[in-house]
Amino acid sequence: MLKKILIANRGEIAVRIIRACKELGIKTVAIFSEADRDALHVQLADEAYCIGPASSKESYLNFTPIMSVANLTAVDAIHPGYGFLAENADFAELCAKCKITFIGPSVYAIQKMGTKDVARETMRQAGVPIVPGSEGIIESEAQAIALAAEIGYPVIIKATAGGGGKGIRVARDQEELIKSINVTQQEAEKAFGNPGVYLEKFIEDFSHVEIQVLADNFGNVIHLGERDCSVQRRLQKLIEETPSPAINSTIRKEMGNAAVKAAQAVNYSGAGTVEFIFDKKDQSFYFMEMNTRIQVEHPVTEMVTGIDLIKEQIKVASHETLAINQDDIQFNGWSIECRVNAEDPFKQFMPTPGQIELYLPPGGLGVRVDSAAYPGYRIPPYYDSMIAKLITHGKTREEAIERMKRALSEFFIEGVSTTIPFHQRVLEHDVFLSGDFNTKFLELHSIMKDATID
Amino acid sequence: MLKKILIANRGEIAVRIIRACKELGIKTVAIFSEADRDALHVQLADEAYCIGPASSKESYLNFTPIMSVANLTAVDAIHPGYGFLAENADFAELCAKCKITFIGPSVYAIQKMGTKDVARETMRQAGVPIVPGSEGIIESEAQAIALAAEIGYPVIIKATAGGGGKGIRVARDQEELIKSINVTQQEAEKAFGNPGVYLEKFIEDFSHVEIQVLADNFGNVIHLGERDCSVQRRLQKLIEETPSPAINSTIRKEMGNAAVKAAQAVNYSGAGTVEFIFDKKDQSFYFMEMNTRIQVEHPVTEMVTGIDLIKEQIKVASHETLAINQDDIQFNGWSIECRVNAEDPFKQFMPTPGQIELYLPPGGLGVRVDSAAYPGYRIPPYYDSMIAKLITHGKTREEAIERMKRALSEFFIEGVSTTIPFHQRVLEHDVFLSGDFNTKFLELHSIMKDATID
Repeated sequence: MLKKILIANRGEIAVRIIRACKELGIKTVAIFSEADRDALHVQLADEAYCIGPASSKESYLNFTPIMSVANLTAVDAIHPGYGFLAENADFAELCAKCKITFIGPSVYAIQKMGTKDVARETMRQAGVPIVPGSEGIIESEAQAIALAAEIGYPVIIKATAGGGGKGIRVARDQEELIKSINVTQQEAEKAFGNPGVYLEKFIEDFSHVEIQVLADNFGNVIHLGERDCSVQRRLQKLIEETPSPAINSTIRKEMGNAAVKAAQAVNYSGAGTVEFIFDKKDQSFYFMEMNTRIQVEHPVTEMVTGIDLIKEQIKVASHETLAINQDDIQFNGWSIECRVNAEDPFKQFMPTPGQIELYLPPGGLGVRVDSAAYPGYRIPPYYDSMIAKLITHGKTREEAIERMKRALSEFFIEGVSTTIPFHQRVLEHDVFLSGDFNTKFLELHSIMKDATID
Repeated sequence: MLKKILIANRGEIAVRIIRACKELGIKTVAIFSEADRDALHVQLADEAYCIGPASSKESYLNFTPIMSVANLTAVDAIHPGYGFLAENADFAELCAKCKITFIGPSVYAIQKMGTKDVARETMRQAGVPIVPGSEGIIESEAQAIALAAEIGYPVIIKATAGGGGKGIRVARDQEELIKSINVTQQEAEKAFGNPGVYLEKFIEDFSHVEIQVLADNFGNVIHLGERDCSVQRRLQKLIEETPSPAINSTIRKEMGNAAVKAAQAVNYSGAGTVEFIFDKKDQSFYFMEMNTRIQVEHPVTEMVTGIDLIKEQIKVASHETLAINQDDIQFNGWSIECRVNAEDPFKQFMPTPGQIELYLPPGGLGVRVDSAAYPGYRIPPYYDSMIAKLITHGKTREEAIERMKRALSEFFIEGVSTTIPFHQRVLEHDVFLSGDFNTKFLELHSIMKDATID
């Protein structure tokens, strides 16, 4: 088993990883930017080192000081969390060179899944359903026009190097198509240094359903069921749940098998997520992308399976064989996560960094809080605005929702505005309660109707 | 279903009950003493009323103002929590007269189980194993001497009206026996207004193992497994867990059946606990007493069964039929509870009322906190010193313990001393870790060895 791990991250996920390490008896090394001196992860780790200024580029994304601390503190491994360096193949490669275990899949798997057109082609070959579209990147306008005519409008143009909602454009006719290809290529060149774009049929009404997979280094791959992340605002997930209210047990099984196939196709190891587009009309699903890291919403899976995903990542990285078989996994009840952000939902979700004066998280049965906030904590303006993940579990979807409403009502945060009022409205909304919604939910229903503009 | 409930309690259990009510859509009425104006349960309830001065006798034990609030607010029911009026048959009777549902068993069941010699006789007749001893109260010194000679010393003298460790004395020979009977009778007369005492064989080395039962008003009785509460200091439980490391599956089944029989014998309804003495040497167990209320340690049972016991109490009180059969109950993993008290473990557990300056409870997977504390809360000196229950769950006992250690290490309470350091020592102790211990554990092993006196 690994003995000492550097956590190359901040915020709640750094705290989450430290917790798993403590429970496994593994020493932890935290890193922090100058803006994070007073952060909770710095307090909780066994050792902590400042690695640079507030700017992520100069701190949490900066290979040199991070590897210096790793060498200085003689860690066995680095856990990248999510975001920052989590899907950076170059960093994973540098770790390998320095004989430090990167807690994640191989450089090969990161690369294969990190480039969208390559991932798509790999999935096609592996027999995982993909959205109809171009095989590889678009070579010419003529090719794109012909293809779009064949599969039918609307189509979506995606930068192969994009992600997180960036480098994506929809075209509803030929004119928009030409324009979108050009603009997306230019933007992608600027943002990612790679102008490649590809084209797919645009499925307008779909649920975002993703499968959690877990694989070891000995060819064992299992899946831990799905998560539904259809409550999104501008492609940012806000509420996630498992099971998905959109799919039935047949689809669940097929999607699980497809996700295992996807992982096997890149010799995946560790925890990963295969995201699917699920079209409720014809019950079809298509590969969207694979996130080769732990995800923000991993707790809901933990709540229904009882499996600690971070511990599993560490065990796999320690070259242990998976101790769980597919058939061993029991799914108990329902779990929901609300991302509580320091944003003002009444002002277009504008970030609200500043000092948290009062902080009292909710408690009791079936309530879990993953957070790095504390009374008096000053939220820096430089990073993600998520300050807490509130997760509830119940025997049924209804109980998990009622529990979430109860927990939100006793989550006391004063000093900064948060998205708690937004979540409270969603959880009262008939369409959300019915379970019959897709990624258009927030677009179609004016949740913050009394807000200035949503 | 009940629509509005008055919670005749304070502290964490009042908060716990409010949480269950909120999740069921039931309105709540809190009551509070003058010392509890700023208490969390007052904040969280829909309505709250002051019922008298700090002294429990004049507030939380005072029928008149409580019933006045109940009438004023037109509640359907009163939930007494634990302690205070929870096992007061007179109060339950008054509720019935006022046509308000008392959330608990019948007056009959409270009375039968509330008087120790009656309970003992009832159990004997029902075929539940009882410790050898007197049938009914002791009538004369001569009778006691003859009986003690027959069953063998040491014997224990108990006030029939006693409880919570009060009104109990051990005698190791005839001289001590005579003295103990006289002193216990006098004390019991003074404390409980009832001088009756009875005599039992004193089993020195035993585990405290109790069974959670649940019954409806239609004759259905089930049990939800056991809790081991052997980590006690002066008969006060400090750490509880389920399953019990002391018993095997045969004993578990027998004890469960005996508890169901005990509940049936008094037509029990609602949630209750049948406590047993378990003698590991000969694997025998005996009825100790039945607590006709929810218990402090109920959360560990909830963690492994997923059943919300307070909701079940409310459903039974609403005349619903139990929705769970004995065979439906699945026991998942292991759960432990540490009672965090405002006491200084380095100074003989002296209570430490005062202001909590910093308060940050732990979070993450498998961690539950039931508490009424918050940053800035001033703990009044008048009531119980428990300020939080920290409960963890894991796949195994080892994982639940490691998680508890982790959670204790990140439970930040400043301003008052707490028993957190005590719990940390117990959780590092080889004997505790081995699972091979009984109620003598804290007496035999000097946990706070550097403390002035323990």
